[in-house]
Amino acid sequence: MTEFKYKLLKKSGKARRGEITTAHGTIQTPVFMPVGTVGSVKALKPTTVDALGADIILGNTYHLHLRPGDEVVKEMGGLHKFMNWPKPILTDSGGYQVFSLTDIRKMDEDGVEFSSHIDGKKIRINPEISTQIQNNLDATITMAFDECTAYPCTEADARKSMELSMRWAKRCREAFEKRPGYAQFGIMQGSMYPHLRAESMKKLEELDFEGYAIGGLAIGEPNEVLHEMVPVCADLMPEHKPRYLMGVGYPSDLIKAVREGVDMFDCVLPTRNARNGQLFTSEGVVNIKRKEFELDKSPLDPNCSCDTCTNYSKGYLRHLFKANEILYSMLASEHNIAFYINLMKTLRQAIEDDKFEEVADELLKKVR
Amino acid sequence: MTEFKYKLLKKSGKARRGEITTAHGTIQTPVFMPVGTVGSVKALKPTTVDALGADIILGNTYHLHLRPGDEVVKEMGGLHKFMNWPKPILTDSGGYQVFSLTDIRKMDEDGVEFSSHIDGKKIRINPEISTQIQNNLDATITMAFDECTAYPCTEADARKSMELSMRWAKRCREAFEKRPGYAQFGIMQGSMYPHLRAESMKKLEELDFEGYAIGGLAIGEPNEVLHEMVPVCADLMPEHKPRYLMGVGYPSDLIKAVREGVDMFDCVLPTRNARNGQLFTSEGVVNIKRKEFELDKSPLDPNCSCDTCTNYSKGYLRHLFKANEILYSMLASEHNIAFYINLMKTLRQAIEDDKFEEVADELLKKVR
Repeated sequence: MTEFKYKLLKKSGKARRGEITTAHGTIQTPVFMPVGTVGSVKALKPTTVDALGADIILGNTYHLHLRPGDEVVKEMGGLHKFMNWPKPILTDSGGYQVFSLTDIRKMDEDGVEFSSHIDGKKIRINPEISTQIQNNLDATITMAFDECTAYPCTEADARKSMELSMRWAKRCREAFEKRPGYAQFGIMQGSMYPHLRAESMKKLEELDFEGYAIGGLAIGEPNEVLHEMVPVCADLMPEHKPRYLMGVGYPSDLIKAVREGVDMFDCVLPTRNARNGQLFTSEGVVNIKRKEFELDKSPLDPNCSCDTCTNYSKGYLRHLFKANEILYSMLASEHNIAFYINLMKTLRQAIEDDKFEEVADELLKKVR
Repeated sequence: MTEFKYKLLKKSGKARRGEITTAHGTIQTPVFMPVGTVGSVKALKPTTVDALGADIILGNTYHLHLRPGDEVVKEMGGLHKFMNWPKPILTDSGGYQVFSLTDIRKMDEDGVEFSSHIDGKKIRINPEISTQIQNNLDATITMAFDECTAYPCTEADARKSMELSMRWAKRCREAFEKRPGYAQFGIMQGSMYPHLRAESMKKLEELDFEGYAIGGLAIGEPNEVLHEMVPVCADLMPEHKPRYLMGVGYPSDLIKAVREGVDMFDCVLPTRNARNGQLFTSEGVVNIKRKEFELDKSPLDPNCSCDTCTNYSKGYLRHLFKANEILYSMLASEHNIAFYINLMKTLRQAIEDDKFEEVADELLKKVR
């Protein structure tokens, strides 16, 4: 049986080139995980996501629990089989969505009770239930259920919230069914207070998770604060396990966080912004709806070899956007995901060549 | 230079197996033409439409004239290049849309004036303008601009309308710029009156179009009336030119019309109904939203080898539909187009084997 393990292959400064072995295949890090909220990376076939080079995708526990239901997914053979994605899947714990999307009825030491955004039905999630849902989904990597501390937050509130999340982390760890090649990650909290982050990390390490995530960032704080906190958190994390920065971000955010030693990322930005007309390229952001592109026969990104950039012009993409054609979302999402995946590939190569700083500096001059 | 020509290869009863040579490639008939209204077959990449075996697609003159504008398409290298579809394209004349979608301000001997459904702008289309727009789009097959006679209609009104369309056909023919491998089709009108249909066909033949279409059907008349009129019209059409039944229809309609000697079809049904949850299969229609499919692990159509039927279950398709995921429209459209294309392939083979009647009878027992 394949064991879950992280192997650090090379470092360039603090940037880490690694490899994660799982029951569903190997993940080259640093890695970007496209988000497949309800069992589909929006507007892309899983075979396309695979062909673009994605090693792992993310599924949302909250959404899948509500629809189609994790019991349904289990009955259908698990999320990999259900959605035709045999490679690794990381599921979040539902915590972030519960605290940001729902009308919370009640929160206590046990967990939270809330109303479904679909039909208003009353639902409870707690550490054991979240872990069980992720087990039903057959997640390769299960995330601990935590409270995502709001920003800004007083130190006292941040401590209270962090300590609750750490008590929940212990219950999650106990509820997790270990299986070869599967993993569970603990999530560090502590808001913007370094000593609370350190306390949180210490408690998580006692529980010996297979990996660790930085939670409670990219939730509305200024971008400088995010990048002040990333090195603080990353430096606290053990060297021999994967480090995951949740919900980040723009290409420049990924580059900066890799520079600080982060290995894993997920974000809805490439797909969501694609649908809204914002396309990421090697020369910066293209707002495809602009009139200037009406007669533009050139490819979106001359340095990209994705199908969109190979076979379609900016003029055609703009037309599809204006005409509200589904094909627009397909072609735009394909490019943006290709851009993120290729960016990570470039960063991995730069670490292997021990030229991370110069490659990162060059990239940061151009990308958003 | 390739000349446009229709070659009748074989007959089985009245059903015709043919081949149309064009500047953009060869079309095997009977053929179904997927509809790409505004320069995209909805929710499908052109490369997917090609891989499914489509020989020709349809573009809508009315929609493309309004957005992005036929001058824009021309500047971008024509519709083939603009949308990455090098194979044949037939464009309708805009007549049907003008008479069914718009607030017509004025209609006279010259043409019609109407308001754009996008921005209310006043626009005129007449035989010369429609022909010029289709020339700008670089249509392989240009359709004559006609008045689609409403149903029901008195004989006097049907005659008046048909005669106007025939005067317009003459102007279209004169406006058409002949190019090797390109064609212009005349459209027969005359409502449900056989003698008017005969008069119409006679006038069209005097103009020596490269092909002929049956217009004014599938516009709200009972299905029996449609199938009464198809043989009446088809029998009037010359043997050595392609015969196109516009805007039809369900799989059973296509089978019945091929039996009467029709060669070409277009319809939005497979893509539009796919998006609405209606999927065509070898065993009949599947309404994928039904609860009964929630845990159904079986493929949509076990007799179909499209990507959707090969890699996804009915349960997953239902989930995607309920969750309003774009991937649903992609997978559903791909299957429905595959079904139509494969149906025509089956009919072509049946004609080659001179077993059309028995194959058609078998199919009609099952398909809608």
